[in-house]
Amino acid sequence: MSVDPVLNRIDSSLPESLDRLMELLRIPSISTDPAYKAECDRAADWLVEDLTSLGAAASKRQTPGHPMVIGHIDGPGPHLLFYGHYDVQPVDPLNLWDNDPFDPQIEDTPKGKVIRGRGSADDKGQLMTFVEACRAWKAEHGSLPCRITFFFEGEEESGSPSLIPFLKENADELKSDVALICDTGLFDSRVPAITTMLRGLLQEEITITGPSRDLHSGMYGGAAMNPIRVLSRIIAALHDDSGKITVPGFYEGVPELPDDVIQQWEGLGFDHKAFLGDVGLADLAGEAGRSALEMLWSRPTCEVNGIGGGYQGEGFKTVLPSTASAKISFRLVGQQDPHAIRESLRAMINDMVPNDCKVEFKAHGASPASVMPIDNPVFEKARQALSDEWPDEAAFIGCGGSIPVAGYFQTLLGTESMLIGFGKDDDQIHSPNEKYDIESFHKGTRSWARILAALTK
Amino acid sequence: MSVDPVLNRIDSSLPESLDRLMELLRIPSISTDPAYKAECDRAADWLVEDLTSLGAAASKRQTPGHPMVIGHIDGPGPHLLFYGHYDVQPVDPLNLWDNDPFDPQIEDTPKGKVIRGRGSADDKGQLMTFVEACRAWKAEHGSLPCRITFFFEGEEESGSPSLIPFLKENADELKSDVALICDTGLFDSRVPAITTMLRGLLQEEITITGPSRDLHSGMYGGAAMNPIRVLSRIIAALHDDSGKITVPGFYEGVPELPDDVIQQWEGLGFDHKAFLGDVGLADLAGEAGRSALEMLWSRPTCEVNGIGGGYQGEGFKTVLPSTASAKISFRLVGQQDPHAIRESLRAMINDMVPNDCKVEFKAHGASPASVMPIDNPVFEKARQALSDEWPDEAAFIGCGGSIPVAGYFQTLLGTESMLIGFGKDDDQIHSPNEKYDIESFHKGTRSWARILAALTK
Repeated sequence: MSVDPVLNRIDSSLPESLDRLMELLRIPSISTDPAYKAECDRAADWLVEDLTSLGAAASKRQTPGHPMVIGHIDGPGPHLLFYGHYDVQPVDPLNLWDNDPFDPQIEDTPKGKVIRGRGSADDKGQLMTFVEACRAWKAEHGSLPCRITFFFEGEEESGSPSLIPFLKENADELKSDVALICDTGLFDSRVPAITTMLRGLLQEEITITGPSRDLHSGMYGGAAMNPIRVLSRIIAALHDDSGKITVPGFYEGVPELPDDVIQQWEGLGFDHKAFLGDVGLADLAGEAGRSALEMLWSRPTCEVNGIGGGYQGEGFKTVLPSTASAKISFRLVGQQDPHAIRESLRAMINDMVPNDCKVEFKAHGASPASVMPIDNPVFEKARQALSDEWPDEAAFIGCGGSIPVAGYFQTLLGTESMLIGFGKDDDQIHSPNEKYDIESFHKGTRSWARILAALTK
Repeated sequence: MSVDPVLNRIDSSLPESLDRLMELLRIPSISTDPAYKAECDRAADWLVEDLTSLGAAASKRQTPGHPMVIGHIDGPGPHLLFYGHYDVQPVDPLNLWDNDPFDPQIEDTPKGKVIRGRGSADDKGQLMTFVEACRAWKAEHGSLPCRITFFFEGEEESGSPSLIPFLKENADELKSDVALICDTGLFDSRVPAITTMLRGLLQEEITITGPSRDLHSGMYGGAAMNPIRVLSRIIAALHDDSGKITVPGFYEGVPELPDDVIQQWEGLGFDHKAFLGDVGLADLAGEAGRSALEMLWSRPTCEVNGIGGGYQGEGFKTVLPSTASAKISFRLVGQQDPHAIRESLRAMINDMVPNDCKVEFKAHGASPASVMPIDNPVFEKARQALSDEWPDEAAFIGCGGSIPVAGYFQTLLGTESMLIGFGKDDDQIHSPNEKYDIESFHKGTRSWARILAALTK
């Protein structure tokens, strides 16, 4: 089955493909906020219906959280598992959006047309590139060149609490020759990429309680411990002056990069001044002596994702608050053990909390880093297919983000993953005014058609 | 004019006095939040009407912020200026209130009856003790024993931005022989107090901006500076390990207590374990080597009243936020210069902010500490009158809070102030479930009647 007519059909049916994506983007499937539970369900229903229209045997599978969507289409060649997620990040601060985040618009920008809206790049726009490639292939040839299982999750943005039990229970149905995960980016607008190193993620929420109630800072200030002071000391102590993370044992299992990888990354000519300049910064904030790509792809990090305590409204309130809390996350690499680091972090914090204050810990996600086996020939086949579609040769790169599902596919299904995506650095995922380039969507769909052809030759 | 029939009338008319206070408490006059501007105005109108019903020439005076209320009643003796404030603190977190904060209730508690509601102790309940004492005196004797000017402010809880210009413009109308300020507490439920040392207050809001927009902590984490990390380092650096404040020059003008004051305070038998135990704490958090009363009354402090940045909702969001901010206040003593300290704080913070991050400062209130001239005979007369009303002798005490108006009366009107109030440590002012004891209100009203008699003998 030739790929050329499929590519032509993708080109001619782009408007209808975009219409379908817009429909999906209008569903506010924010997984982390319980208020949007019904919307997550609605997004899952939409996908079941869309996969069914392709001829897939598709169904919604309940979990204790948001449902999974599974669809099967039979075919002759290898069995491919395709993964994407239909849930999206919260939209706050809403006032920084130029438009309703759930009323997506196609906009002209100096860099080309984009679809603007929450989830356009992360991950609805990306998952639909694969669906549209399959649709065009089926329409052109009447069948697909291989067996495909679609697997869409609805809890990726909220720590995937149901994923491991679901994979365990449904391992026979899901295990396949190779998994394709579409939740990553291009290296740049000319260079497509297969992501072969992913950082892990450890998320912890801590709440310090000082006095049993909010106090007047004049009546009690000076004598009573302020939990914001305790929390700030803890956060300030998480990095030393050279940018290293101070949690005891944190760097156990962090490998040094092999020389050939260092050389390949240096060859990419990454411009960190431009990368940071795009977001108003100039200086690298990570460990002294490390390159920017190391900081982003191969070194672990510690970030405070949120902090709050006391009075945050207009004006001033002279309160000495009862509690203060922070959400802290770590990106992990190599063999770092998220559970051991969580224990070490908690012990370190316990040591820093005064005797008469309390600390409560709340565990959120924990997943180790992943490194892909690029000596498997499917990686080179896919790299060639991507290189045929885009201006420059495709690269094997690292990724600072965490896509724990790749690790779970490996350990729970015995299936290796290829991470191929079409996002750009300026997509503003997780931020106001998220967008996805029409070029990403269109050439991404074409890329998948080429990859299907390459893997089934 | 004898005080005894006035005291009897206060006793017999207590229910009506409480009804009037409840009316005033039902007006949500939160001065710091612009949404309640009309309610502040309504509280001022209520007071004008109430003073008019006493026979005062009362009026509302507009300012650029919330209005002042002035009322004059002529009389034979010295001219007394009475000050209170009709504005109240915000009520958040609202979910910690057992009842609507603006639907005051009289409750039985193990320690006696209380009025529960925002403003009951700070300061509507307190200001009404004086109004009710005047009402009873007037009703009993047909006139007051001296000339009285009532002066009620509506911006005390929001830094009093209009107070200085108003006092300057109306100095001739307001200057008097002595000012009475009712916004402080008893030493304990048996020992009434005249507060003769007040800490000053310096308030500063700081906002750190790192990246120009919220970022994905996976895509940027490690390379881009996190403003929460910068802010936490700043806050952690404000105290050293011995609890001293590190702002350069901060302790200039901080006096050591005279030996006789130290002895008097030691004689009060203050139980700091019980004081802190009431709010769930055990250990003194201030400077090493200082007593609890020094920490609370005569030593300066630094407190963070609020902090916020990044995602604070349910669940987790792996954001690297663009901004983080904190509201920081300092209690000042002796001759500490709030303006010099603000400049020094800003310079210290500027030095700690990385080159590519920004810091914005917003000045809120700034007032120096006050020390009252207790050799003026009115202090001893008032102390005697208080001692007649309460079980034990009245004490001259310090106060950790800041009542800048006393300093302004001194410098702008040439009028010294006596600070006499009837609040208790467990009134939960500025906190959920604020209350004022019926005993405080009743014996407070009686105390003012006795003080009027003592000062006009």
